Amino acid sequence: MSKNLTKRSEDYSKWYNELVVKADLAENSAVRGCMVIKPYGYAIWEKMQAELDRMFKVTGHQNAYFPLFVPKSLFEAEEKNAEGFAKECAVVTHYRLQNDPDNEGKLRVDPEAKLEEELVVRPTSEAIIWNTYKGWIQSYRDLPILINQWANVVRWEMRTRLFLRTAEFLWQEGHTAHATEAEAIAETEQMNRVYADFAENFMAIPVIKGVKTESERFAGAIDTHCIEALMQDGKALQAGTSHFLGQNFAKAFDVKFTNKEGKQDYVWATSWGVSTRLMGALIMTHSDDQGLVLPPNLAPFQVVIVPIFKNEEQFEAIKLVVSKVKSCLEAKNISVKFDDRDTYRPGAKFAQHELQGVPLRIAIGPKDLENGTVELARRDTLSKEVVSIEGIEDKISNLLETIQNDLYNKALTFREEHITEVDSFEDFKTVLETKTGFISAHWDGTEETENKIKELTKATIRCIPYDSKIEEGQCVYTGNPSRQRVLFAKAY
Amino acid sequence: MSKNLTKRSEDYSKWYNELVVKADLAENSAVRGCMVIKPYGYAIWEKMQAELDRMFKVTGHQNAYFPLFVPKSLFEAEEKNAEGFAKECAVVTHYRLQNDPDNEGKLRVDPEAKLEEELVVRPTSEAIIWNTYKGWIQSYRDLPILINQWANVVRWEMRTRLFLRTAEFLWQEGHTAHATEAEAIAETEQMNRVYADFAENFMAIPVIKGVKTESERFAGAIDTHCIEALMQDGKALQAGTSHFLGQNFAKAFDVKFTNKEGKQDYVWATSWGVSTRLMGALIMTHSDDQGLVLPPNLAPFQVVIVPIFKNEEQFEAIKLVVSKVKSCLEAKNISVKFDDRDTYRPGAKFAQHELQGVPLRIAIGPKDLENGTVELARRDTLSKEVVSIEGIEDKISNLLETIQNDLYNKALTFREEHITEVDSFEDFKTVLETKTGFISAHWDGTEETENKIKELTKATIRCIPYDSKIEEGQCVYTGNPSRQRVLFAKAY
Repeated sequence: MSKNLTKRSEDYSKWYNELVVKADLAENSAVRGCMVIKPYGYAIWEKMQAELDRMFKVTGHQNAYFPLFVPKSLFEAEEKNAEGFAKECAVVTHYRLQNDPDNEGKLRVDPEAKLEEELVVRPTSEAIIWNTYKGWIQSYRDLPILINQWANVVRWEMRTRLFLRTAEFLWQEGHTAHATEAEAIAETEQMNRVYADFAENFMAIPVIKGVKTESERFAGAIDTHCIEALMQDGKALQAGTSHFLGQNFAKAFDVKFTNKEGKQDYVWATSWGVSTRLMGALIMTHSDDQGLVLPPNLAPFQVVIVPIFKNEEQFEAIKLVVSKVKSCLEAKNISVKFDDRDTYRPGAKFAQHELQGVPLRIAIGPKDLENGTVELARRDTLSKEVVSIEGIEDKISNLLETIQNDLYNKALTFREEHITEVDSFEDFKTVLETKTGFISAHWDGTEETENKIKELTKATIRCIPYDSKIEEGQCVYTGNPSRQRVLFAKAY
Repeated sequence: MSKNLTKRSEDYSKWYNELVVKADLAENSAVRGCMVIKPYGYAIWEKMQAELDRMFKVTGHQNAYFPLFVPKSLFEAEEKNAEGFAKECAVVTHYRLQNDPDNEGKLRVDPEAKLEEELVVRPTSEAIIWNTYKGWIQSYRDLPILINQWANVVRWEMRTRLFLRTAEFLWQEGHTAHATEAEAIAETEQMNRVYADFAENFMAIPVIKGVKTESERFAGAIDTHCIEALMQDGKALQAGTSHFLGQNFAKAFDVKFTNKEGKQDYVWATSWGVSTRLMGALIMTHSDDQGLVLPPNLAPFQVVIVPIFKNEEQFEAIKLVVSKVKSCLEAKNISVKFDDRDTYRPGAKFAQHELQGVPLRIAIGPKDLENGTVELARRDTLSKEVVSIEGIEDKISNLLETIQNDLYNKALTFREEHITEVDSFEDFKTVLETKTGFISAHWDGTEETENKIKELTKATIRCIPYDSKIEEGQCVYTGNPSRQRVLFAKAY
């Protein structure tokens, strides 16, 4: 496995693309814009899924599964709310292929097998789900409905990048139904906090919680809450969103209920999701010029053990020690891989595990056997030390915790250093061209100004942070009065 | 929730359809042939997934994810092997909808957005996966590849039934690549054993392991191994298949490797899968005229506690006891739900939990408080007893194990009583018309006879059981010589 990664400082984008492929996370497929998620990448995604799923269940949600296809007419019903989504999408028009009579060995669409109504491959499931909820909800006793779905969705993106923007991607989408506005708003906020908690404490990615401006909102939402992360190149990445949908979808699909007072009302809705895009955020937050760097929580295996030997006898002796070390670690719930492949040399193994971001590497050679030691190498700092085998499980257990925290703190320091308050448009542009990162600035609240700034600088308003103080100020572009700073950045 | 299930003896098929919907497992959707799997049904599927996933990982497999779409040309390459699959399928021909200029508020397919090559929604993933493996495999060092995928697939079925046959369904598909024929055959057999182990020990469904005849094989397979279960109406249900694919797919997609001797050879392949169809097998094996019966291993919650009270004071006292009982049970890893809804009366709750197959029900009323007892009801036998709260966790733990075993044994007894050896075609027909079930009979080994028997009786050869003895005999239909009995049945 050749490393030779492009350096981040040379070409960040190229570094990312190469890393995803060389670290065996994903690759492009024979289908335009669709990726293959390889076992190593998928194992990381599975860890994210398991933790998120646990957090969703703790907060009272259940999983369910709704159809892949959305009949065109359901999009038409929704269209008033959700313009845009129904447009760039994969459309199923036929249900049969047949042998092509004009072209032996080839298949063609059977012209007789045209669907009466076209089916759209779901780009998101509000339409099909609210059409279903209609049948489930009659009274306040049927509420709340707190459902999540793990699924694949398809959006016909023209420019795709592995994990960050693909035609098909994997995600979870929560769709909840409530009897009151207050309850739906509380749910929207709760799920955004769950996402922030997950990103920070599990993925070691610091995020800013906030609310989107009208133009950046999900189509059909009253409010979109989000978490925004900062990548190493100073660009922001939206890592999760939680939408308060008001009664928009209930009205579009005519979902009413009888409340406790016996009156009919429309149901209140939320939806919220994160996707395999988080894999991109993970990579671009922690990794370096040597390859992937994984927080221990997300590593498919946290420790790899590489034996170094010259003959079979040494190998046998090492195996005995390894087996002891491995059991001690596993007893502490630490995942370990013994890389005993005889088809690769130690140097090649070191390079591969570094590239793939295994948090800790243990090497054991003949000298270690004599001394009762091993060589322990940290992936994040690339530092090495020789340590005694005695009590190694405690040492490693603590070290994994340290690495998890260090990665978070390193990313947090970077993020803090890359939030700049500016009060003039000149400074705004200078920061974007030099330091990059988030810019905290006053804005006059109009879509017109937002668009103008985007046009001139490519920066968009990432969010109005929850913790943004009320203060008198002047819009950085128009000079009009403003009462709150918002966060701008160029974004993925 | 009204029970009023049709009785099995009246109309088995109607009983099944009603049960699936009334027990809140699944329902039909707005999309022809596609189902909504409701939270209660999905929770059962999740338990199956978790256990299967664990078993796959123990046997060395990793998960990955491949695209939903298969370009038409890949099906053409495969077609020589896998006739049939590419035919009845959902075909994506366009990638955009637009507002219909002739019909305000309506959408139509954008005629300009026609795909150069049609995309088929995967009915199974051999084509896309083997086309991908081609890039992964150069040498014997890259083998074996042991990958599983959890995914949705679509087959355009004309007649659909919830879980048993739906246009879209959920499944797992294993796709492995090996350096030798022997290794691939061993993998095929291993995975069929894994399925049998899962069905019997986890789902409490006895199955017969065997091999399909040529006409019942997976298209493109050299051999199809399967597990066959028997439903309460005497019809068989194929619950899982494992295919030895030989070098067929490697040849179709030109996947060669350099073996240890430095020579080029085609890679050997297997694939294996089970689907949400298992939900149908589960329901039709154990359930009764009162509704669903769940083996404790698969129950979303194993114990439900229903409080019975006349006033708030009693309810408070009961809650204290329940909280103690619940903790004791949960400490033993028993899942418990306290049904404290104030919107339903105890009778309605009893009916619902019976319909939904909760293995054990605890009822606590004022008298129980006085006596330190509860009423404990088994769903499978519908028997009730009053037991002391003291040590109830051990009692229930043992009882859950008993129920799991009893369900298996009951189904096994039924299955054993419904395997009939016959040696004449008259008996063959009589058994099918009266007793039904599996028929063990000699067959002359020809597809012609197999088809003739199917035409005359609707019975097919379910499998040649692994444990079928070699014995001299005469084909039940033609009288031609036969050396082995095979199993016939009508099947789902």
